[in-house]
Amino acid sequence: MPDDHRRAERLRQAPRTDRSLGERMRAFVEALQTRICKAFERLDGAATFSADPWERRGGGGGLTRVITGGDVWEKGGVSTSAVHGELPARMVEALGVGAGTFFATGLSLVMHPRSPYVPAVHANFRYFALGDDALNPVDHWFGGGADLTPVYPERADAEHFHEVWKRVCDEHEVADYRTFKQQCDAYFYLPHREETRGVGGIFFDYLRDDPEGTFLFVRQAGRAFLSSYVPLVERHKDRAWGERERAFQTYRRGRYAEFNLAFDRGTRFGLETGGRTESVLMSLPPVVRWDYDWHPSADTPEAEALAFFRPHDWLGIGDSSEGSREI
Amino acid sequence: MPDDHRRAERLRQAPRTDRSLGERMRAFVEALQTRICKAFERLDGAATFSADPWERRGGGGGLTRVITGGDVWEKGGVSTSAVHGELPARMVEALGVGAGTFFATGLSLVMHPRSPYVPAVHANFRYFALGDDALNPVDHWFGGGADLTPVYPERADAEHFHEVWKRVCDEHEVADYRTFKQQCDAYFYLPHREETRGVGGIFFDYLRDDPEGTFLFVRQAGRAFLSSYVPLVERHKDRAWGERERAFQTYRRGRYAEFNLAFDRGTRFGLETGGRTESVLMSLPPVVRWDYDWHPSADTPEAEALAFFRPHDWLGIGDSSEGSREI
Repeated sequence: MPDDHRRAERLRQAPRTDRSLGERMRAFVEALQTRICKAFERLDGAATFSADPWERRGGGGGLTRVITGGDVWEKGGVSTSAVHGELPARMVEALGVGAGTFFATGLSLVMHPRSPYVPAVHANFRYFALGDDALNPVDHWFGGGADLTPVYPERADAEHFHEVWKRVCDEHEVADYRTFKQQCDAYFYLPHREETRGVGGIFFDYLRDDPEGTFLFVRQAGRAFLSSYVPLVERHKDRAWGERERAFQTYRRGRYAEFNLAFDRGTRFGLETGGRTESVLMSLPPVVRWDYDWHPSADTPEAEALAFFRPHDWLGIGDSSEGSREI
Repeated sequence: MPDDHRRAERLRQAPRTDRSLGERMRAFVEALQTRICKAFERLDGAATFSADPWERRGGGGGLTRVITGGDVWEKGGVSTSAVHGELPARMVEALGVGAGTFFATGLSLVMHPRSPYVPAVHANFRYFALGDDALNPVDHWFGGGADLTPVYPERADAEHFHEVWKRVCDEHEVADYRTFKQQCDAYFYLPHREETRGVGGIFFDYLRDDPEGTFLFVRQAGRAFLSSYVPLVERHKDRAWGERERAFQTYRRGRYAEFNLAFDRGTRFGLETGGRTESVLMSLPPVVRWDYDWHPSADTPEAEALAFFRPHDWLGIGDSSEGSREI
């Protein structure tokens, strides 16, 4: 049993009384934000992240960090927040609980690369607690995930991304790659297009049975994020592209905007509960096209791309409910 | 009393038994579609409307007409449809009625001009009936409206637009400009931005008390549409503009996409009930930008524009609940 698993086991037996899980998660996501922003700045070489601290009227606040106009990143954001206060009515309804106080903290990131050959990525790691006593919450859980949205998808990229997440899941009893992968396909789905948003990844929510074990999983998932994505950026960022690829990229970004504005629960929730609008909508792509009823010609790279936007068993672990691996 | 009002009065006394209101409305919107498309093509001089007939699996269909890449119109659509069948579950729920059959017909248009100085426009006229017998529906009603979305708003444009709609409303007992105008401000509102989508217009729904009188009003509103909008296109279409104005236009179109995807009931309904996606989303702007936390500098035309995006008493008819006329 690795050291960190042993430490989690000790904490299960003798929970910490000095620092709440919420505070520990908050410290973790803030450190992760710094680390991820530094790595992304290094990758870009030109642009740097801004830092926009903000306060929430009802309690708490956040730090929104955005990078735009870079060589690699056309627009991207890595945000953390730690908010608390009375549960908004909309949340009472959504969670099916009584009125009371809550605490929520997390990191959320979306990166829109300039190159149509570099996939966009989204990741999110969050903790939510109900009740007045942070050390003994009435209820609390973790959620999160990571998913990849290429414009010109390649199987090797999807496989690398999923392999990293499977490896992380396999190390933790609280995590099941196959379930989380299917939840990701189901969540990032555009019913009106009958398309997944991208090539998936993992998605999990309401993990509440083993808080110490789950926090350990979430930390390792957060730390694994860069290794799931940065190799793909490095693989494609210097590949030449032109107007045709740019047009397809901005067209595909329309799907991203459709999903985020019309279907993403986090975005809708943020807009409906008076979240900081610019932070909630930081995920929207920088430039988007909507062409009426456009379809790629047969046997073009654009037509091949579309075959990727349905669930696939990338790692060949067998699941008859999914599409074939053959693309 | 004008002839058409006398005719409506006669039909109130002796309803037609040969042709349902639904069929008459359908014929009206189809003729209106032809007329509006011709006028818009003339205005453009270069591009013409395509014609995409489509069928609905459950019954009926429509004709989607789209114009793109014109000198005046960057993208626009004028659609009609006439659909019928079993009420989808989502509609049973939304309308609070039992299962049964329905008929719906209408015209919907959205025009996105190329020039940032020419306002975008939306209009919609629709009829909905419940029940098997088209000549004696269980329930039926009209809805619709028209609203203007300038990028660089001018008071004279808003006044002209509202004057036309007030004049039409004033001629009909079923229509009240003040109410319809307020409903428009309330409907085309982005709560997360605390902005109206544009400078408003009129919006009405569930007009069911006097079907013949309402159909007459809807016909006159449909016929008045071109006079509410075309003079504004002619006024501004030849004005020179550059990259700065284009950037502000594509930025403001982000608001349009946010409203349509996240808040517009018609769009959400269409996506949720399996409407023809490309027809439902034909309203989305052709090119959109999202810049993180962008604000115009003080005393620029862009800063002045933002003052228009809240309810205004354009015609000075007095309403203390609205913002001042002074812009």
